[in-house]
Amino acid sequence: MKRVAILGAGGMGTALALLFRPAVPEVVLWSRSDEHASAMSESRVNARHLPGIAIPPGIHITSDLPEALPGADLVVAAVPTAYLRSVMQRACGHLAADVPFLSVVKGIENATFERPSQIIVEAAGERPVAVLSGPSHAEEIARGLPASVVVAGRSAALNQLVQETLSHEAFRVYTNPDAVGVELAGALKNILGLAAGICDGLGFGDNAKAAMITRGLVEIRRLGVAMGGQAATFHGLAGFGDLVTTCYSPFGRNRSVGERVGRGEPLEDILAGMVNVAEGVPTTRSVHALASKIGVEMPITAELHAVLFEGKAPREAVYDLMVRLPKGEWDS
Amino acid sequence: MKRVAILGAGGMGTALALLFRPAVPEVVLWSRSDEHASAMSESRVNARHLPGIAIPPGIHITSDLPEALPGADLVVAAVPTAYLRSVMQRACGHLAADVPFLSVVKGIENATFERPSQIIVEAAGERPVAVLSGPSHAEEIARGLPASVVVAGRSAALNQLVQETLSHEAFRVYTNPDAVGVELAGALKNILGLAAGICDGLGFGDNAKAAMITRGLVEIRRLGVAMGGQAATFHGLAGFGDLVTTCYSPFGRNRSVGERVGRGEPLEDILAGMVNVAEGVPTTRSVHALASKIGVEMPITAELHAVLFEGKAPREAVYDLMVRLPKGEWDS
Repeated sequence: MKRVAILGAGGMGTALALLFRPAVPEVVLWSRSDEHASAMSESRVNARHLPGIAIPPGIHITSDLPEALPGADLVVAAVPTAYLRSVMQRACGHLAADVPFLSVVKGIENATFERPSQIIVEAAGERPVAVLSGPSHAEEIARGLPASVVVAGRSAALNQLVQETLSHEAFRVYTNPDAVGVELAGALKNILGLAAGICDGLGFGDNAKAAMITRGLVEIRRLGVAMGGQAATFHGLAGFGDLVTTCYSPFGRNRSVGERVGRGEPLEDILAGMVNVAEGVPTTRSVHALASKIGVEMPITAELHAVLFEGKAPREAVYDLMVRLPKGEWDS
Repeated sequence: MKRVAILGAGGMGTALALLFRPAVPEVVLWSRSDEHASAMSESRVNARHLPGIAIPPGIHITSDLPEALPGADLVVAAVPTAYLRSVMQRACGHLAADVPFLSVVKGIENATFERPSQIIVEAAGERPVAVLSGPSHAEEIARGLPASVVVAGRSAALNQLVQETLSHEAFRVYTNPDAVGVELAGALKNILGLAAGICDGLGFGDNAKAAMITRGLVEIRRLGVAMGGQAATFHGLAGFGDLVTTCYSPFGRNRSVGERVGRGEPLEDILAGMVNVAEGVPTTRSVHALASKIGVEMPITAELHAVLFEGKAPREAVYDLMVRLPKGEWDS
């Protein structure tokens, strides 16, 4: 790999530039904001997302797509889900027909329920796309702290290329053939971040939160499998692994919103005060609708939907989950 | 169920007495310590394990086995693994031949690698034994905070009886046929509590800890399946659910020991200052020996063994885990 172009200069895009740099001679980091790109170019720091971490000289920063994309052997998509389609539409005129993509976008397009890799090939044409996911706070990666992730996709060759290029002593990359499951797990976990936060906000303790996450994983896996993902992916780094960081990290956006909901703050007030989106909120709405439509039982999502959008009291929702009909743990 | 006898008046035995009481007319709570039994009888509080929580009048407290056991429709084993065999040997003369057991003992007998339910039938004769496990800090249960657990065993009738008797609006009981997996998960998770604590002690962040737990669950599941447990159990409340509380609760004994190891304190010094046993330490030793003997690959357990017993530096052990041969996530 001679040249990698990274679309998106948030925390994760910048951390990936640092990860690719030692193995790839030319790394280009593109930001859609002229201002952000110039500031990073001058200061050699991503002050907004990774303050204090130096960006080494080999990483070229630009806000110009025609400058970033031509000649790339791999393009990395690292923009928020909500902007992915429009960025891809702007990018597609500057892409070679066969250049492969790596997506680190976690989320789904709520209006269409499409996964990032689907949006990429829709906008840019059929091509190999791998997705990278797992417990991967950008700041920790950028600081060189250990992390393990999965890279998944239908092209085993692309998976292996990414694995070989990115692996080093603090970054372990596992391959996985199930991109559908990896992408769905990355989006659906945000629902459970909200639910776990609600347990925290109610002061319900470790037992309730662990049960919520465990049973929540059962139901997001159920939906994931109904949509073509593999159960094993939900038990791996992109599922279980990412889920525990989402639910236990004090900084998790969805968990924090859930905590405030659990304490009794109205959702509108919480969202009005936030700069970044808590993706779990729209995801809960679209997943609840989808699950009803295709007949997948998701009791935690249903109660969460009732709390967020139907005015149900969080405490009542938790107790309603507890007193449902007695079940076997493996009942579908 | 007319009468339940609970052997062991620690936190969990006492919390179970409170859980059984509303549905069972006679609940007897037995402590092997005369002193502890008298103090509880007089004060109606388990000051040592559940301070501040009143023990209602319907619960009879005794240190006399011939008083506790006769007439019981169910006997609950709630003593530490290390004392289970000797308590069962003292109890067996006072038991009806067919009285079923419920075990809440989490651990294995390190010298024999026997599970609590095996020790019970060896000492007291063949009989139905169910096991109850999952994320279940006793103090939270005793305070009435929500919890969900599994009850597992070969007798579906006994599982269902326990489910019906214990379920209420803050306590949800799922049945599960796989007692072997439930018991092994409860013992093996302590190894990962130590490993997760070491990540904390090294200051390695959320990514590393989540990866350690995710990949750790893969390897304890591998051993569990080799010993006759079901993979699904390791993904459920007794596996994943109990594991996350073990690894994220600041009060977890094994996690705390691991954290101090990660900070560089010698294991002997840590253990010398502790009243209660951190079961993960002897379990790591016996599991490492067993895995080598039966040829099950457990890289995290092997590195943990090297840190605890062979003088390896924790930081070096983590990096050695990261740079092993590239793998597929689902490789066995």
